[in-house]
Amino acid sequence: MTETSNSRESGSSLFLGVDVGGTGIKMGVVDDAGQPLAMSRLDTLEDRGPEDALQRVYAAAQQLFEKNQLPWECLAAIGLGVPGTMDIPRGLILAPPNLPHWRNFPIRDRLAEIAGRPVAFANDANAAAYGEFWIGRGETCDSMIMLTLGTGVGGGVIVNGKCIDGSNSFGSECGHLLVDSREDARLCVWDGGQGQLEAYASASAVARRMHELLKAGEPSSLREGVADFESLTPLDLAVAADDGDELSLRIIAEAGRYLGIGIVTLVHVIDPGMVVLGGAMNFGGDEAPAGRYFLQAIKDEFRRRAFDVVRDTTEIAYASLGSDAGYIGAAGYARMSCS
Amino acid sequence: MTETSNSRESGSSLFLGVDVGGTGIKMGVVDDAGQPLAMSRLDTLEDRGPEDALQRVYAAAQQLFEKNQLPWECLAAIGLGVPGTMDIPRGLILAPPNLPHWRNFPIRDRLAEIAGRPVAFANDANAAAYGEFWIGRGETCDSMIMLTLGTGVGGGVIVNGKCIDGSNSFGSECGHLLVDSREDARLCVWDGGQGQLEAYASASAVARRMHELLKAGEPSSLREGVADFESLTPLDLAVAADDGDELSLRIIAEAGRYLGIGIVTLVHVIDPGMVVLGGAMNFGGDEAPAGRYFLQAIKDEFRRRAFDVVRDTTEIAYASLGSDAGYIGAAGYARMSCS
Repeated sequence: MTETSNSRESGSSLFLGVDVGGTGIKMGVVDDAGQPLAMSRLDTLEDRGPEDALQRVYAAAQQLFEKNQLPWECLAAIGLGVPGTMDIPRGLILAPPNLPHWRNFPIRDRLAEIAGRPVAFANDANAAAYGEFWIGRGETCDSMIMLTLGTGVGGGVIVNGKCIDGSNSFGSECGHLLVDSREDARLCVWDGGQGQLEAYASASAVARRMHELLKAGEPSSLREGVADFESLTPLDLAVAADDGDELSLRIIAEAGRYLGIGIVTLVHVIDPGMVVLGGAMNFGGDEAPAGRYFLQAIKDEFRRRAFDVVRDTTEIAYASLGSDAGYIGAAGYARMSCS
Repeated sequence: MTETSNSRESGSSLFLGVDVGGTGIKMGVVDDAGQPLAMSRLDTLEDRGPEDALQRVYAAAQQLFEKNQLPWECLAAIGLGVPGTMDIPRGLILAPPNLPHWRNFPIRDRLAEIAGRPVAFANDANAAAYGEFWIGRGETCDSMIMLTLGTGVGGGVIVNGKCIDGSNSFGSECGHLLVDSREDARLCVWDGGQGQLEAYASASAVARRMHELLKAGEPSSLREGVADFESLTPLDLAVAADDGDELSLRIIAEAGRYLGIGIVTLVHVIDPGMVVLGGAMNFGGDEAPAGRYFLQAIKDEFRRRAFDVVRDTTEIAYASLGSDAGYIGAAGYARMSCS
């Protein structure tokens, strides 16, 4: 493996990472050490279907190389992260809920045909986890779990450098671990799963919980500030919590508590040494009082329940790459597939 | 790798597996294909400490080879499974609860010194899981989870042929995943962990639950049959359940339900395709009505809660190697370490 400080001039391998989402596709060129060299974004235009999107991805990739004077011939492989459901060994996208026009499509092989490059195929959450593992918060780790807290809860479980894909390409689906066994446990807004982490610690769950409690008459500064409860987001809660709103703080602590419960189970089964929290639902993250309060609530519940062997040695921290983790990790999958 | 039908005569490699328990040590010679060729058992005599035990293991191993006319020079490596806590990379046994005189001992390297052979070191539950994976119920699988239901609940998580050891040698501790988040959730008799699988689906948990309900006056045939509630075992419940005792059936179903909850979480995170139930607490297993009733209760709860992607493709079955899984799996670890 070549190691140079400037891979553009040395002619060493470059990797393209493509992170497909329901509304946008983020793509970037990454060198052999994981450093991003250029990045661009295009609209998914979901209803035009996958063939159209792949053609536009290919054209955008060529432009990206050209514009940044990167040699196209150094593009060794492409990594493609897409949301599930999927069949990873066969390279198929099956029935992704947020890409309804992209069903049963051989996306890996079609992109390889169009681009004339080998394509590595991954679940989007697993790719993001791999990005954080490769050059982000987990870069010093051998194993790592990432929970991606967005509208839902995604996950990536990396053990000794490899992400757990699963026998049905359903591995690492940490949003669906059970954190509440009660008969009246909450239902996930996305899929109806009962008592699962996603129903307690996703942006939609938190917004719905706030909406419920405001409707029930709980006092909160958000009652006055927001005309329409339905449109509340975790960011509204973060702003209110930073101003000391008790109800917002209570809901943030509650979400943190359930995350702590879920993390105990994950750590007792995997013992990764590191748990990284990615995604937009971080109440401002390390930079904001509400974000730090959220992280502390998670850690408190974890420490209350975890075994002593893992309690003091497991780090829990916010991710460091933001929304770049997906394409960087996808590029990392491409690199792995070449070695 | 040599492949012959009779490795004893061909001079191909043999492996010794040693499975250390609190009262007994089971050991056996296994060929390159995982077939057991000879087996013996000795008392642990825990209070004499590990050095004494290793010397006796070595002497017993030599006798075992001699008695069965196996060539000692073909012994390529030894696999050693011991109960945690442990430091796998350093080969240390740390503070195993059921081996109180065996603390902080470099057991791997000491056995290697005594026997003049490389020694592979594993957690006993992980070794048993590997045995079932290698030549038992999971032999056709790439990944597999085994839950060992005994006085406690142990586990082994195998992903693509490798067991998850964990960053603190605490991986695969499936007995400690949370299945009950209520404030009054049950406590584990062994370690006080609250709401964890071991507090619901181990032999001790089941016996304690029966004891509680009999004391509370619930009708059961066990009330008349057993003079001392304290001495009840899962076998007593199995016998009573086979005769139609409603309370025994209820408790077996309850344990099964919590196991089903735990298995949903494990399958949503790992997606192994196969979950194997080992250990003595199986109410007679496939051979007995109570054992089949227990397995059905587990499967019903799993199917009620699992995602459709994994619901119909994940097999849940009793283990096939019984108590031989431990030494066979330890020998498998030895074989892996040589390849």
